[in-house]
Amino acid sequence: MSITTDFGAAYTGIVAGVVARIAPAARVQVLSDEVTPYAVAEGASLLTQALPYLPIGIHVAVVDPGVGTARRPIAVRAARGDVLVGPDNGLLAPAAEALGGVVEARVLEAPGLRLPEPSSTFHGRDVFAPAAGHLANGVPLAEFGPRVEPLPLRLPAPEVGDGTLTATVLYPDSFGSLVLAAHPDDLRRAFGELPYGHVLDLDGIAVPWVDTYGRVPAGDPLVFTDSSGRLALAVNQGSAAQAFGLKAGARLTLRARGRA
Amino acid sequence: MSITTDFGAAYTGIVAGVVARIAPAARVQVLSDEVTPYAVAEGASLLTQALPYLPIGIHVAVVDPGVGTARRPIAVRAARGDVLVGPDNGLLAPAAEALGGVVEARVLEAPGLRLPEPSSTFHGRDVFAPAAGHLANGVPLAEFGPRVEPLPLRLPAPEVGDGTLTATVLYPDSFGSLVLAAHPDDLRRAFGELPYGHVLDLDGIAVPWVDTYGRVPAGDPLVFTDSSGRLALAVNQGSAAQAFGLKAGARLTLRARGRA
Amino acid sequence: MSITTDFGAAYTGIVAGVVARIAPAARVQVLSDEVTPYAVAEGASLLTQALPYLPIGIHVAVVDPGVGTARRPIAVRAARGDVLVGPDNGLLAPAAEALGGVVEARVLEAPGLRLPEPSSTFHGRDVFAPAAGHLANGVPLAEFGPRVEPLPLRLPAPEVGDGTLTATVLYPDSFGSLVLAAHPDDLRRAFGELPYGHVLDLDGIAVPWVDTYGRVPAGDPLVFTDSSGRLALAVNQGSAAQAFGLKAGARLTLRARGRA
Repeated sequence: MSITTDFGAAYTGIVAGVVARIAPAARVQVLSDEVTPYAVAEGASLLTQALPYLPIGIHVAVVDPGVGTARRPIAVRAARGDVLVGPDNGLLAPAAEALGGVVEARVLEAPGLRLPEPSSTFHGRDVFAPAAGHLANGVPLAEFGPRVEPLPLRLPAPEVGDGTLTATVLYPDSFGSLVLAAHPDDLRRAFGELPYGHVLDLDGIAVPWVDTYGRVPAGDPLVFTDSSGRLALAVNQGSAAQAFGLKAGARLTLRARGRA
Repeated sequence: MSITTDFGAAYTGIVAGVVARIAPAARVQVLSDEVTPYAVAEGASLLTQALPYLPIGIHVAVVDPGVGTARRPIAVRAARGDVLVGPDNGLLAPAAEALGGVVEARVLEAPGLRLPEPSSTFHGRDVFAPAAGHLANGVPLAEFGPRVEPLPLRLPAPEVGDGTLTATVLYPDSFGSLVLAAHPDDLRRAFGELPYGHVLDLDGIAVPWVDTYGRVPAGDPLVFTDSSGRLALAVNQGSAAQAFGLKAGARLTLRARGRA
Repeated sequence: MSITTDFGAAYTGIVAGVVARIAPAARVQVLSDEVTPYAVAEGASLLTQALPYLPIGIHVAVVDPGVGTARRPIAVRAARGDVLVGPDNGLLAPAAEALGGVVEARVLEAPGLRLPEPSSTFHGRDVFAPAAGHLANGVPLAEFGPRVEPLPLRLPAPEVGDGTLTATVLYPDSFGSLVLAAHPDDLRRAFGELPYGHVLDLDGIAVPWVDTYGRVPAGDPLVFTDSSGRLALAVNQGSAAQAFGLKAGARLTLRARGRA
């Protein structure tokens, strides 16, 4: 089982504790307790990148700005055999896709499969962890509640112009590299086949398209394919988030050098 | 077994390593390695909130500004069956209470149950982790040293005035919500029965009393019952610690709106 | 098995996931996911301090500014029986020494013992985690690739003058204590036998040589022997890194009080 949250260590540890009390034999791995608070797109992207590399199992994920409101708590079985547990706010949908697509999804509403008297603010502890524990113990998905169609995650699309590619920063990773809502294919659509070493332009700054950080001097920027498969803007041995002053949601435009 | 520290990952990892060498079969969960350095009240509050949700077991906790001085290292058996291991500085007492009360407490001084030649600065590694490992292996509590009465944690009491509630910030949680040394009962003592939606005043700012973050617009403040059962001041999808510029130890006063 | 990285939680979680898929029975402990990004000397120092306290096993360590360039991925068997897996950039050499010295080291190049089509930027996932998993499954070290001599880590030497000791800050630890590339022996070489309580001088500030933090008032600086066995500069219940404004790589000089 894996756990992914924007809770930091302590509240994530409580989630893991609730799982351990219900399902003592479950092997639990914290995938991340460091998702940026409330950053659903960042959490979704991490799950999509990470879960295919993890063992088939139950994956609890909680980035949940709407906790305690009308948003539904859900569990989603994916074709690979995993079950994803979390809020129905787009967090789980792309990862379920990456694991082969949704086979069955249920609302988590059976009172006996939650903690008694769930709080309004900590469904990780009171709703999602118990669901994960009971799933680990073999309770069938159908017992948790009625079928549901998980909500999709909506990501801002990249824009390809005449020798320009405009994309949105999805999140800075732990090195400060800015992961973009765009893929190498979008780069090719904008600029044609780009050999590594080709230099692009970002607001007047030269940004080479390379395969890894060490192709440019320490402190210099680069564009590369992040390990998630997305385009990303980095600074070798530095932080692109700091160097460019950009955050999640910022929109940036790469241009061919020498063109307006 | 759980481990809770203000050490960060690396030193906490060393603690877990010492446990694993002494008690290879123990299942160890890091509850938190992110307690604010030296923040005994924050650590005590986390343990009090969290341990009842964890499996019965041994819980090592180290927030220890007095390491290497006269403060005693102790182990405390609670009525639920847990044993808490850490410094005798108030860190363990409230959690022992939450687990049913102290049944037996001992000073950790048997030289054979520590690492040889303990350092003056890292009792987590040299004293507490070995004690936890030996306890996990079944060494009786009585073999560690003489009986002791654990020191209590002293928290600043809330003050109820005529339509005012003054309370101390215990700690900001990982979302920046300010957990107060006060409970919903104190709110009722100050303001009578408050329906959700009622608006209080904090230094001229309107702060609604609600059940969860999403009841106010993103960026707006709120007062609610934190998952620890305490009152807390939050900002929906933001950080109250940043918005109000308040830290642990700060004292704040909530007032009825329209009263001085 | 232990894992140590400068990746933060999420990418470290992916590394642990790859290990779990290849070697489901392996018991994996994250020693640290918080090494300062690109700080090879800090990572090497942590491994050197920590691994002797951990169970004999496989230790994956990745602080790897040269990922995807010509630097070699290696595995190193130490005399104690551990195998260290990581980049050949000096990160592993001091820890191998602390575990009894290098017995055998190999380049990780067998294609069947990596993930298919390794990326240029995430060898933790694509090269090092698979190697660790296969080693845990009993694949002999010799099958990974040709023998290699691991590169040493070069640390800046301390300088002993007439009543002065000049040393380089290796890293600030999680409390902000500045761990120096110098040992208590260097202090003795500079100042003779120093009794605890003796006061040294750092840029005009009095810094007592003591055995633990609590020997000076909260907020005051001190010099002590860090739990790694190195000299360190701390502030009791505070952060020396903040108080002195010093970072890894800074060079500082301790003097006898009253001498130039």
